[in-house]
Amino acid sequence: MAQKPSTPKGTRDFNPKEVAKRNYIFNMIKSQFKKFGFQPIETPSFEKSSTLLGKYGEEGDRLIFKVLNSGDKVKKADLKALEEGKLARFSNSLSEKALRYDLTVPFARYVVQHQNDITFPFKRYQIQPVWRADRPQHGRFQEFYQCDADVVGSQSLWQEVEFVQLYDSVFTALDLKGVTIKMNNRKVLSGIAEVIGASDKLIDFTVALDKLDKIGEDGVKKEMLEKGISQEAINKVQPLFSFSGTFIEKINQLKELLSGSEIGMTGVEELLFIGNAIEELGLETAVLDLDVTLARGLNYYTGAIFEVAAPEGVKMGSIGGGGRYDDLTGIFGLKDVSGVGISFGLARIYLVLEELNLFPDTVEDDVKVLFVNFGKEEALYCMKAIKEMRVRGINVELYPSDAKMKKQMNYANKRQIPYVAIVGSEEMKSNTFMLKNMETGEQEQLLLEEIVRKI
Amino acid sequence: MAQKPSTPKGTRDFNPKEVAKRNYIFNMIKSQFKKFGFQPIETPSFEKSSTLLGKYGEEGDRLIFKVLNSGDKVKKADLKALEEGKLARFSNSLSEKALRYDLTVPFARYVVQHQNDITFPFKRYQIQPVWRADRPQHGRFQEFYQCDADVVGSQSLWQEVEFVQLYDSVFTALDLKGVTIKMNNRKVLSGIAEVIGASDKLIDFTVALDKLDKIGEDGVKKEMLEKGISQEAINKVQPLFSFSGTFIEKINQLKELLSGSEIGMTGVEELLFIGNAIEELGLETAVLDLDVTLARGLNYYTGAIFEVAAPEGVKMGSIGGGGRYDDLTGIFGLKDVSGVGISFGLARIYLVLEELNLFPDTVEDDVKVLFVNFGKEEALYCMKAIKEMRVRGINVELYPSDAKMKKQMNYANKRQIPYVAIVGSEEMKSNTFMLKNMETGEQEQLLLEEIVRKI
Repeated sequence: MAQKPSTPKGTRDFNPKEVAKRNYIFNMIKSQFKKFGFQPIETPSFEKSSTLLGKYGEEGDRLIFKVLNSGDKVKKADLKALEEGKLARFSNSLSEKALRYDLTVPFARYVVQHQNDITFPFKRYQIQPVWRADRPQHGRFQEFYQCDADVVGSQSLWQEVEFVQLYDSVFTALDLKGVTIKMNNRKVLSGIAEVIGASDKLIDFTVALDKLDKIGEDGVKKEMLEKGISQEAINKVQPLFSFSGTFIEKINQLKELLSGSEIGMTGVEELLFIGNAIEELGLETAVLDLDVTLARGLNYYTGAIFEVAAPEGVKMGSIGGGGRYDDLTGIFGLKDVSGVGISFGLARIYLVLEELNLFPDTVEDDVKVLFVNFGKEEALYCMKAIKEMRVRGINVELYPSDAKMKKQMNYANKRQIPYVAIVGSEEMKSNTFMLKNMETGEQEQLLLEEIVRKI
Repeated sequence: MAQKPSTPKGTRDFNPKEVAKRNYIFNMIKSQFKKFGFQPIETPSFEKSSTLLGKYGEEGDRLIFKVLNSGDKVKKADLKALEEGKLARFSNSLSEKALRYDLTVPFARYVVQHQNDITFPFKRYQIQPVWRADRPQHGRFQEFYQCDADVVGSQSLWQEVEFVQLYDSVFTALDLKGVTIKMNNRKVLSGIAEVIGASDKLIDFTVALDKLDKIGEDGVKKEMLEKGISQEAINKVQPLFSFSGTFIEKINQLKELLSGSEIGMTGVEELLFIGNAIEELGLETAVLDLDVTLARGLNYYTGAIFEVAAPEGVKMGSIGGGGRYDDLTGIFGLKDVSGVGISFGLARIYLVLEELNLFPDTVEDDVKVLFVNFGKEEALYCMKAIKEMRVRGINVELYPSDAKMKKQMNYANKRQIPYVAIVGSEEMKSNTFMLKNMETGEQEQLLLEEIVRKI
């Protein structure tokens, strides 16, 4: 069998360096989650198909990986559906389970299923892989991690304040300074729609407005007119074309604009609460900004909308996002559970840290000393030292066989092990080790105690 | 939609306490792996079907979860196979990918695929879920974690020595004292088969011998005769019925018994090397024992065989096992890569730690102080303290709304938060907090600095 094995398209292996870097990000995020009182949950990789299907729209349903029924159950294949070309129905007749498509629907299912055991407000985080049958292409994978933090069962705006702080804390901990936390509010968007008198044109409006930097005021207005937004409407929102200043200053401009819209003003008040609190509390390294063109998750967010942009100069889409939704669990029959949540774009954060060289050198926490193996007697002498060093928390190892010195040194080089300990009869007599610094080539004859102190 | 949602049979959710306990075990194991120079890898959840099928025997193939092909590909369903009742062939015509069944085959695939990037000997560990379409029943799940450490590319017996030490270190770190690390050797089993002159009766022989404690020497001999093992053969292995003493003492008894078998004596020499090294190096809390009835993985292990038994008094099957295999990667075309590996039985270790009450109280690392919310002004005052405490690494939170005091206290109780901080106008004036110990009910008016020191 000379088949050259490989992973399926759209999936990948992670080597030790990659696992270490990813775990570094996970651990930094988790430790901040904990400080903010979030608790971890985990849900199964597959859910009942009925839990997932119909929750992500038609396109989403197509991208859900279905698990084939086992054994005799495949006899129930709906061949008529296959004949008629109803492939989704045919597939569903062969499958009762499907792989997790995101963490939100499983979380909603979890909350409803365990509602009697949960203390609300429930602050949970979840870091697990999800699967999507997307066409594999550069940088898009069929298996990838998501990382979500949500609070359900509280309408308090302090949650939004905390999420701004949480983003700031995580990116500060990752030494990724200067991210922009952009906020908007669904109610502000509704207010703008009211003012321009065209709810159905809201997306066209925000998309056009978002191009202000690129195509200028005249260009934006031209596009709006082309999209059927009236000149009168455009005149009404004229202040948005010179929208500038701090978060609070922008809110004050918005206040004037939306003074005639009740829902718009509610949105402004909410943003103002958050802005004032953050001004009082301060942020470490992030900047809070108001962006009225932010319209992500328009279909389900009902209040705050978040999006995080990488520091200026890094070309990368958003590295985080989220918002408030008034009815997460309604799909499973539990009404009136308001929630707000954010997610971290792990793959992109990884790329940004890589680009800016922000992973610590020590991230791998690999072997510090390789003990060279010259034979059974020397090896046993080394193993006694190795045991002692491990108890002291130092990662060390013995080269397993008494191979040629060159081979053993090669191994140390390739593994990037910084020190090699060499033991001959002289060292064994004097209870010492010849410690070689693999970078400088320097050698010193040391007692075990001295090696421990050195490392 | 009043559907009451639930997880599929054979799967489960993990709540925050369970996740914390599981992570405690994972982290303890990982930190020992690192000290011993093992490096983490991760492989995708699904592999090409061709990678997995045929590697686990017929029963294994049946238990592999197949992922249904997406979109138009299901048109290729082999209806003839369905008609003829060839369900496996029908299933395979609908699926090109399958969920990971264990970590060993994906690891073998990884080694072959990345052989040019790997520095051998390669010491890897892997902790990931696997999936099996077993009939769900008490304590058996369709999704569970495996935890493996292997070294490939070295035939040195120092690896076996290190695995004994690794088991000892992990269980010592988990405070699980008194586990027995049982060892055997495939070559010793071959030697015994030679001596009894009946290789095909080896399993019957070990199964019968294993009952010595329960049914006594006469009972065992009776069973052996019934299984077709000759009286002459039984006479030859008479020493095994009074097999006792330390690891080394047992080896010496074995030596006499197997003196006529070349392969048997090789096995004895291997065990002796390991036994002598461990005697020199010592173990922390585990005991090394020789068990010639240990015949796990008889089909693939070629040298050492390991199995770990929980401390006496705990009723639980083995909590770990492993062995040496001479040809891990041959199935993928890479010959002569010897390996040796062990695994940890995570689910059982979890149950043992639970039974012996060995999880630390602090395992959840949950919120230490809840700040009661009396309204906007008080909340902001608290949030300033909260920010400071989080920077100092303390997990704290604000109750999100100014709900009734009783409700907030209830929340603290249910979450088992040990302290509650209460802030009224008096505290705000004096820059203090009323800290209530939720266990004793004791209250103290303290400065932030004093609270930090107290916690």
